[in-house]
Amino acid sequence: MNAITPTITEGPLPASRKIHIAGTRHPDIRVPLREIALHPTADEPPVRVYDSSGPYTDPDVRTEIEEGLPRLRETWIAGRGDVEPYEGRVVRPEDNGFTSGAKLTPEFPNLKQPYRAKPGQAVTQLAYARAGIVTPEMEFVAIRENLGRQQLKEQRARDGESWGAALPDHVTPEFVRDEIARGRAVLPANINHPESEPMIIGRNFLVKINANIGNSAVTSSMAEEVEKMVWAIRWGADTVMDLSTGRNIHNIREWIIRNSPVPIGTVPIYQALEKVNGIAEDLSWEVFRDTLIEQAEQGVDYFTIHAGVRLPYVPLTAERTTGIVSRGGSIMAKWCLHHHKESFLYEHFEEICDICRSYDVAFSLGDGLRPGSIADANDAAQFAELETLGELTRIAWKKDCQVMVEGPGHVPMHKIKENMDKQLATCGEAPFYTLGPLTTDIAPGYDHITSGIGAAMIGWFGTAMLCYVTPKEHLGLPDRDDVKTGVITYKIAAHAADLAKGHPAARMRDDALSRARFEFRWEDQFNLSLDPDTARAFHDETLPKEAHKVAHFCSMCGPKFCSMRISHDIRDEARRDGMERMAEKYRQSGDLYMPVDPAE
Amino acid sequence: MNAITPTITEGPLPASRKIHIAGTRHPDIRVPLREIALHPTADEPPVRVYDSSGPYTDPDVRTEIEEGLPRLRETWIAGRGDVEPYEGRVVRPEDNGFTSGAKLTPEFPNLKQPYRAKPGQAVTQLAYARAGIVTPEMEFVAIRENLGRQQLKEQRARDGESWGAALPDHVTPEFVRDEIARGRAVLPANINHPESEPMIIGRNFLVKINANIGNSAVTSSMAEEVEKMVWAIRWGADTVMDLSTGRNIHNIREWIIRNSPVPIGTVPIYQALEKVNGIAEDLSWEVFRDTLIEQAEQGVDYFTIHAGVRLPYVPLTAERTTGIVSRGGSIMAKWCLHHHKESFLYEHFEEICDICRSYDVAFSLGDGLRPGSIADANDAAQFAELETLGELTRIAWKKDCQVMVEGPGHVPMHKIKENMDKQLATCGEAPFYTLGPLTTDIAPGYDHITSGIGAAMIGWFGTAMLCYVTPKEHLGLPDRDDVKTGVITYKIAAHAADLAKGHPAARMRDDALSRARFEFRWEDQFNLSLDPDTARAFHDETLPKEAHKVAHFCSMCGPKFCSMRISHDIRDEARRDGMERMAEKYRQSGDLYMPVDPAE
Repeated sequence: MNAITPTITEGPLPASRKIHIAGTRHPDIRVPLREIALHPTADEPPVRVYDSSGPYTDPDVRTEIEEGLPRLRETWIAGRGDVEPYEGRVVRPEDNGFTSGAKLTPEFPNLKQPYRAKPGQAVTQLAYARAGIVTPEMEFVAIRENLGRQQLKEQRARDGESWGAALPDHVTPEFVRDEIARGRAVLPANINHPESEPMIIGRNFLVKINANIGNSAVTSSMAEEVEKMVWAIRWGADTVMDLSTGRNIHNIREWIIRNSPVPIGTVPIYQALEKVNGIAEDLSWEVFRDTLIEQAEQGVDYFTIHAGVRLPYVPLTAERTTGIVSRGGSIMAKWCLHHHKESFLYEHFEEICDICRSYDVAFSLGDGLRPGSIADANDAAQFAELETLGELTRIAWKKDCQVMVEGPGHVPMHKIKENMDKQLATCGEAPFYTLGPLTTDIAPGYDHITSGIGAAMIGWFGTAMLCYVTPKEHLGLPDRDDVKTGVITYKIAAHAADLAKGHPAARMRDDALSRARFEFRWEDQFNLSLDPDTARAFHDETLPKEAHKVAHFCSMCGPKFCSMRISHDIRDEARRDGMERMAEKYRQSGDLYMPVDPAE
Repeated sequence: MNAITPTITEGPLPASRKIHIAGTRHPDIRVPLREIALHPTADEPPVRVYDSSGPYTDPDVRTEIEEGLPRLRETWIAGRGDVEPYEGRVVRPEDNGFTSGAKLTPEFPNLKQPYRAKPGQAVTQLAYARAGIVTPEMEFVAIRENLGRQQLKEQRARDGESWGAALPDHVTPEFVRDEIARGRAVLPANINHPESEPMIIGRNFLVKINANIGNSAVTSSMAEEVEKMVWAIRWGADTVMDLSTGRNIHNIREWIIRNSPVPIGTVPIYQALEKVNGIAEDLSWEVFRDTLIEQAEQGVDYFTIHAGVRLPYVPLTAERTTGIVSRGGSIMAKWCLHHHKESFLYEHFEEICDICRSYDVAFSLGDGLRPGSIADANDAAQFAELETLGELTRIAWKKDCQVMVEGPGHVPMHKIKENMDKQLATCGEAPFYTLGPLTTDIAPGYDHITSGIGAAMIGWFGTAMLCYVTPKEHLGLPDRDDVKTGVITYKIAAHAADLAKGHPAARMRDDALSRARFEFRWEDQFNLSLDPDTARAFHDETLPKEAHKVAHFCSMCGPKFCSMRISHDIRDEARRDGMERMAEKYRQSGDLYMPVDPAE
């Protein structure tokens, strides 16, 4: 065997340790959180943050890539009594693009039999939720989402504009169940991916982000892709999509899933196209169906299905500036047009649902006609497809399948909210999952930023998950650095959205960091930031000495001009003169303009 | 003399040439624009873009840093007959922080006598505008802003939400005069900075960006700062603020102004503080007044004056999470509290106006009490100061002085619009000039992004100029790379805002780039982008060969999965089948969901 164990980035983030919280209904669940310790002078408890990084940041766990992660959900899945192990589909040469010999990525060495639903059973979290069952997965995400809220409840009035979302003060397992039952949230949890730590995607939960990885025909390998996954979740990716399109798709995906603590999404049409040698016209329902089963057995948690690209919509793209820019969308459009037939994805959608409900693969209904330029935003093709995605959402729900809906793309700021409003209305509040959107086309090389602007805004308006865009977008395949930049940018967008929506606990980290900044606790400032390594490195470029880590200034202004330092002097001085008394006096005298606090 | 001529980045951007357009009323004016040539297969005229880079990108001009730029406005200024040259103030040791010997930055070698207004004259663009005079400066900016609009008028309906702005279809010199006369726009043009190419800042013009440079007590030098200025305008900075706080402030500033084709802003209190050895309590009106005259004679185009930090407001900051974070604000707060006296800036504001009107230095009324954290956004201290800035705006206008008003800072998304709305109402539509705002505090090292989100939004809502934030914000002094990243990020924010406001010509560049992208004109895609060097480098990382510059794919998807390539196949196929006819048929059949175009 010519396996090369990939080099994986492991170890905790600075000043951080992983803690686990047990469930109440299900005492065996262990929900991971990250605790960031502060300097003793802070006189504050450690700050707890959401932790998507899995066992790789836990020094108590020894991970072995060739073994895969512990199968923590397996007893829950098997315990429900509605699944059965079986032989599974035999891997065929076309699954790896007919690769052989040294070019073949080795098979993952620790394969298990797959599970499937027993005949007639729906094994989806949606089916359980509708039946009134609070699964361990649901309690897990309740604890995970709930982070810090109880502590905060006494402290602060709600401050935000949630645009009609219904954020609870405290997330209960019952609330999670109810949101899933209503279709307003998705808990991606394929029964064949028992290694995953449950997470939830919905408008009334924290905004999530997805990172895309995957090799292409041009570049990359299994070892790189596994490390990209581990690297992406280290910095905060909540789900990862494997968009591989070259050779070895089957085997690379197996290595990724077996080692991923986050849900894995795919676009099955990519692999199906490889199986017919890249000729879109040769695609068929049979090849596609076979691919769905192959991937469901491996444990893919959600499928992007471009069933909304219908034959009559294709001509609507004729006058577009950039045509069809979704890969899946363009493949299906080509098929439809060539055969002059309705899409087989659309026509067989109920059968696709039957497969998904047997493994609990969630839908991510692809927006194959999303705009690829500012010029094409919010056009007839895009909104025609959205209407169909609403229709498909209702079919999937009827079949007990979990659904989210993909959104654009390239949209100028003034047209973003319309996208959110239409999606909510058309798709019955099924979670929206958008790619950016990019707010201008003129900055290739910086599209993490052009899209981070749109992502923050649409996240605020109600998008449940934001698909990252890296600096390489439109130009090439992202490398490890690009993945990190994309993830951090999207964590910023998601967090800015949580703050603006008024998520009860969102501001705790901002406030802790701001206090550290004001008190010149430089180490705390670095450790509380999304990327401690970069913050520290930037600071140390000009002030590298350890003594500077407690200095009451930085190189930006130097000591004399540090406003925060002066602010402290002012406070000290004012304490002698009784600044609070002065403030009170001014308030009473009415000598002062005192606007109404908008938060009141 | 130990002068070291700085190394300056010169030469045109890729595929670009500088063109000049003459005036009609003033035939001697030459307005620079950049023309980006496209590949012959595009069959499109070159794309004209706004060009702030000055003569440094013009191969026909030989720039000599030790000589300074040509004094292109001098004949206009002198020709108005209301100014006189005079001896000027003598440079004193404290102007350069008592530096001497080898540590003293050499004096700029080509000094001229300064001008001032003749007794009783107001030599501001506002005074001229009110008198009904269209100055050459005004015609210059009309041509500069107007770029591409006439050509476009026939082509496209207005598409945007301008939030009450009054964007004209075509910018005339008379419109410019009227906007300045109403105080709704500022044309910074110190009579002692005749080297500057006129530009305008106002809600009904293109959104502008400012880049901060300047040495600190800890690091940097004259040569670096001059190059930072040239580098910042190369990438699109519309104005530059010299925020130097260390030694050699006077001499470094002279080198910068003499070589700057864009307006230069300063915060005079920084230099005043150096003159009193960094002891805020020792500041006085006399030292400050002397500094204003010193800088006005050098040619500073706008002054940040923190006259809104009044004694009664200081106690309002007592309970803040991050106190006072504006350097100027904290200095003045300290002075007020120490002496328990009203601010000398506030009390002498009319005298400050008298100085400014004698040189046409515009005001940038500083927001010394801006929030320094999400926790402090939109609080009583901030809005109390804003009320005073409105009062000062009216005083300045009464004195024929041009005014803009500075804004925050750190503001979560849901509180951004309130800032804009209050500023418009309180300050009579004087241009708003904001620092970001940052939409979260948790990402030091990425604050160009946290703030780029807020900047794009507030720019859309009506902010006229966005002050950039670099990745080093809160951590250290930005270097050359940081300056570029900050400028490009803010060009993105400003352009996204222009698009969303519906600026008539803004979308031309997006559309040209999108067409290039769709047609695989890789070189055109690079050349049309804000940063051609980075776009090209990213592409070439995986596909370096020249042949790939015309390839119908990139390494992101590879040839088989390139949606744009497939889109072309679809079009080709459809042309045979008459896709347009098909589209028409579907439209007529009503078989299809056809949403109303929101732009209609």
